Amino acid sequence: MRASRYHLNTLKEAPSDAEVASHQLMTRAGMIRKLAGGIYTYMPLGLKVIRKVEAIVREEMNGAGAVELLMPVVQPAELWKESGRWEQYGAELLRIKDRHDRDFVLQPTSEEVITDIARNEIHSWRQLPVNFYHIQTKFRDERRPRFGLMRGREFTMKDAYSFDRDDEGAQRSYDVMYDAYMRIFKRLGLEFRAVAADTGSIGGDRSHEFQVIADTGEDLLVYDPGSDYAANIELAHAPSLLAERAAPAESLAKTPTPGAAKCQAVADLLGIPLARTVKSLVLATDPEDGPAQIWLLLLRGDHELNEVKAGKLPGLKAGWRFATESEIVEHFGCKPGYLGPIGTAKPVRVVADLTVANMSDLVCGANAEDFHYTGVNWGRDLPEPELVADLRNVVAGDIGPSGQGLAIQRGIEVGHVFFLGTKYSEALNATFLDETGKPALLRMGCYGIGITRIVGAAIEQNHDARGIIWPAAIAPFQVAICPVGWGKSATVRDEAEKLYAALQEQGVDVILDDRDQRPGVMFAEWELIGVPVRVTVGERGLADGVVELQSRRQGENVKVAVGDALAQTLAALAQA
Amino acid sequence: MRASRYHLNTLKEAPSDAEVASHQLMTRAGMIRKLAGGIYTYMPLGLKVIRKVEAIVREEMNGAGAVELLMPVVQPAELWKESGRWEQYGAELLRIKDRHDRDFVLQPTSEEVITDIARNEIHSWRQLPVNFYHIQTKFRDERRPRFGLMRGREFTMKDAYSFDRDDEGAQRSYDVMYDAYMRIFKRLGLEFRAVAADTGSIGGDRSHEFQVIADTGEDLLVYDPGSDYAANIELAHAPSLLAERAAPAESLAKTPTPGAAKCQAVADLLGIPLARTVKSLVLATDPEDGPAQIWLLLLRGDHELNEVKAGKLPGLKAGWRFATESEIVEHFGCKPGYLGPIGTAKPVRVVADLTVANMSDLVCGANAEDFHYTGVNWGRDLPEPELVADLRNVVAGDIGPSGQGLAIQRGIEVGHVFFLGTKYSEALNATFLDETGKPALLRMGCYGIGITRIVGAAIEQNHDARGIIWPAAIAPFQVAICPVGWGKSATVRDEAEKLYAALQEQGVDVILDDRDQRPGVMFAEWELIGVPVRVTVGERGLADGVVELQSRRQGENVKVAVGDALAQTLAALAQA
Repeated sequence: MRASRYHLNTLKEAPSDAEVASHQLMTRAGMIRKLAGGIYTYMPLGLKVIRKVEAIVREEMNGAGAVELLMPVVQPAELWKESGRWEQYGAELLRIKDRHDRDFVLQPTSEEVITDIARNEIHSWRQLPVNFYHIQTKFRDERRPRFGLMRGREFTMKDAYSFDRDDEGAQRSYDVMYDAYMRIFKRLGLEFRAVAADTGSIGGDRSHEFQVIADTGEDLLVYDPGSDYAANIELAHAPSLLAERAAPAESLAKTPTPGAAKCQAVADLLGIPLARTVKSLVLATDPEDGPAQIWLLLLRGDHELNEVKAGKLPGLKAGWRFATESEIVEHFGCKPGYLGPIGTAKPVRVVADLTVANMSDLVCGANAEDFHYTGVNWGRDLPEPELVADLRNVVAGDIGPSGQGLAIQRGIEVGHVFFLGTKYSEALNATFLDETGKPALLRMGCYGIGITRIVGAAIEQNHDARGIIWPAAIAPFQVAICPVGWGKSATVRDEAEKLYAALQEQGVDVILDDRDQRPGVMFAEWELIGVPVRVTVGERGLADGVVELQSRRQGENVKVAVGDALAQTLAALAQA
Repeated sequence: MRASRYHLNTLKEAPSDAEVASHQLMTRAGMIRKLAGGIYTYMPLGLKVIRKVEAIVREEMNGAGAVELLMPVVQPAELWKESGRWEQYGAELLRIKDRHDRDFVLQPTSEEVITDIARNEIHSWRQLPVNFYHIQTKFRDERRPRFGLMRGREFTMKDAYSFDRDDEGAQRSYDVMYDAYMRIFKRLGLEFRAVAADTGSIGGDRSHEFQVIADTGEDLLVYDPGSDYAANIELAHAPSLLAERAAPAESLAKTPTPGAAKCQAVADLLGIPLARTVKSLVLATDPEDGPAQIWLLLLRGDHELNEVKAGKLPGLKAGWRFATESEIVEHFGCKPGYLGPIGTAKPVRVVADLTVANMSDLVCGANAEDFHYTGVNWGRDLPEPELVADLRNVVAGDIGPSGQGLAIQRGIEVGHVFFLGTKYSEALNATFLDETGKPALLRMGCYGIGITRIVGAAIEQNHDARGIIWPAAIAPFQVAICPVGWGKSATVRDEAEKLYAALQEQGVDVILDDRDQRPGVMFAEWELIGVPVRVTVGERGLADGVVELQSRRQGENVKVAVGDALAQTLAALAQA
């Protein structure tokens, strides 16, 4: 490609709403242009990267035996009503009406449609297993779209759906996809981690996320440096930090703690470690018949509630919310900040975190403003907790399966594999005739990859102050040839053209910057765009028989003989 | 590809709503599955063809210097209000609201968005010309979607938009696209015709349609066998069939024609040629202030009104409709069937077709039930027509530019190129700084290709009683290897595998039918699917050292020596 025939338009400034590097850099590099909140035009440079990601995903999906089809963006509501998601899915599901006032949705995923296809297409066990996928435009009406392509409303996703005769087969299909995903993210050239994950609203029993490691990621990943254990913090087990409960050493005392409404303030005031305090979190559930039920969750003062774990407690599975201030005052006889399990105004259900259940002489709110209890002991000062459960987020250093301390890093979720079982096949009655001739429910798995999000995540992981640093596999161009003095020097033009032709012949995706720009402007532009290898061809260098090679990632300029330019460029690209 | 790993599912019966061959055959061959009215899932076989069409279109667009980007499916209403199309576009424009109650559309085309991009991206004449295109999902909420992929609601279109400094440049861009389209449709292997066309609602001055020739086409194409003149019948000039008006030979007579409300009945009753009669068509316009205005259009009895031409008459350009029966009775004092220009109850505006204006002694309605006038002559019995214009459709035999009779054939519109001028750049104020540093409006062209419609049109043109006959360039597979006795014979398997590997090595898109099906079932399936070349490998043939080759189009089986199988298959494919 010649730059003069391409559309390049880099910007000095990022838009004011761009909070993260990928959003800023994609806009500045001219890869995307905002059309509306969370809706972007993919400009030529951006689309080129997206297509390279798609091509790798497609090759590996095909290689893993999956079959590509394309399901529509606009899907009839009937199927979504059949699965129940028409009601369950929140405002993110964009519901629309056609000219005849019939209900449709803009698809956020396609479980319903593929299950409908399967129940019509698959009749016999002989047709199984089969894995259908498509790469299609998705729409999720995010309340607050942000971070450019990372959390857009319109985006591109690859979603695959496997169908099997039984759970064993479905597990095999799952493993095949897991392996394919490992290959995909390796080929993309990204540092990533596959972690065990919660199955969320899609449901099912088994699930892994593929996370691109980046400090700006919204997910926290827990991993064991001594084993292959890795999980999303939503799911990662947080062990008790106390092997057993020590005998009480203090007596219960109602202690004034004026103005100390947070555990840290209480610890400071009383001169005790934060790990001696217990915090009270008040949740509510709303049974269909009867008034709201109030739950008191107790965590150590330095720990954080894991809301996903809370949602798995018996009694909270159907959904929960934080209690309102008036509910709290009604049940505890006290405003928030001084709450605790002893002497509540009305009965509440008490759940203690694993660590809290083993604490002795603990400090908690006294259900009286400006007072805390110290020397609190289970069984003596209050009943044993109704329920003891893992309620907290793992913290770095918690002991992992290998016996070593767990580590935590941030990631961006770019892929997700789910074992679905019969969730959708049951709802839509998708059956096949098994070997005995009897109808049986199809066993399903689903497998997503956020194509456009990968582009954002790749930049979050790979950039510096000057711009993007593309992995070679998905760079919009692999090599940029920058001739200095294009307009003036026939020698420069000839050598640049020669190298351009030679690289093209080798199948390299190369751009020749024939716009006759000043070197500084040209270099800054290609560094912003992030092309892995730059070759500078100038009269001065040619007089010495050399051109200059620069790897975007390493940054240093290397002079190479004109005769070696092709081989050296290819070598630099192989290492990029 | 091995058939056992692919998803093939052919059907014996076409769905009851499939009116045309392509809809029937695509469904039977398992290429598409209906999800809702006009909304289809592209099954693996169908998607494969679509992707081949896309690839050819993309290559030629890139080769012609156009730059690919991707504009969103969901577009904000603001831009459509700025262009005026929010109001002008009918119910086919699917208008939706997001969760914040903001207005959006599902794009049917992207003139507004690309013009918005251009006004933000293009600052200087130095950036021109540029031609942006995308291949994207479109949505048009057709009142009555039908014909499968030929008139769907969700479909795939390639739309390109050129931007130039002046009209000369824009014409050059138009010509470049015209030439690219010629190459595209040639490469697709379709019989087609580029015809001059009406610019319709998109507007602009110059336009050509690319039509795939097919008897089932909805468009009528007029062409001159003696020159390169070709036009859509909507636009094709219909000359006067009478060089000049003959002198009157009869006197005016009010003649009883009981029950003869149609020209043919009148001609039969009076024993005169249909070409002596004149029919009356009553149109109405609705001025913003004031009552409806009534127009009487006169055509020879054997001619048909061309509604597009009517819409170009002075006074009718802003829109017209057929008059209601009560309007007709009010203005003519008579019900339809006996209307004419003489003695109307109220004044009406009379427009005569070119031929009618030169007729003498003509026969027309007398504005009295069961009566016609005979011997009617312009200037003597009624005033000269207020307006004389080309109002009719061309009929075969009308004299064309070369002096030969024009011919008519049916076509399916699959591509359209428009010279837009400043229609959108003016509405959206899309300017650039010209060489003198002054802002000037961008000159635009737009260029569409119906990717998915091409697939339907290709089938309408290429099929027989047994199924589809794909042009090799867009066949889902180019060659099908059909082993007879796959399960039993190792010899058959070995030879089939050998040929399969050899063809793959040559880059041929080949499918090996390893499903161990009976030959009749297998042959019928591949003939339905329409693979251009079939190679049958069977034990009996192998015993004689031969395999059988069949070209789907020619149909005859040819025995070729096993050693020549590869070369002969390639040769058959080259001729397919």
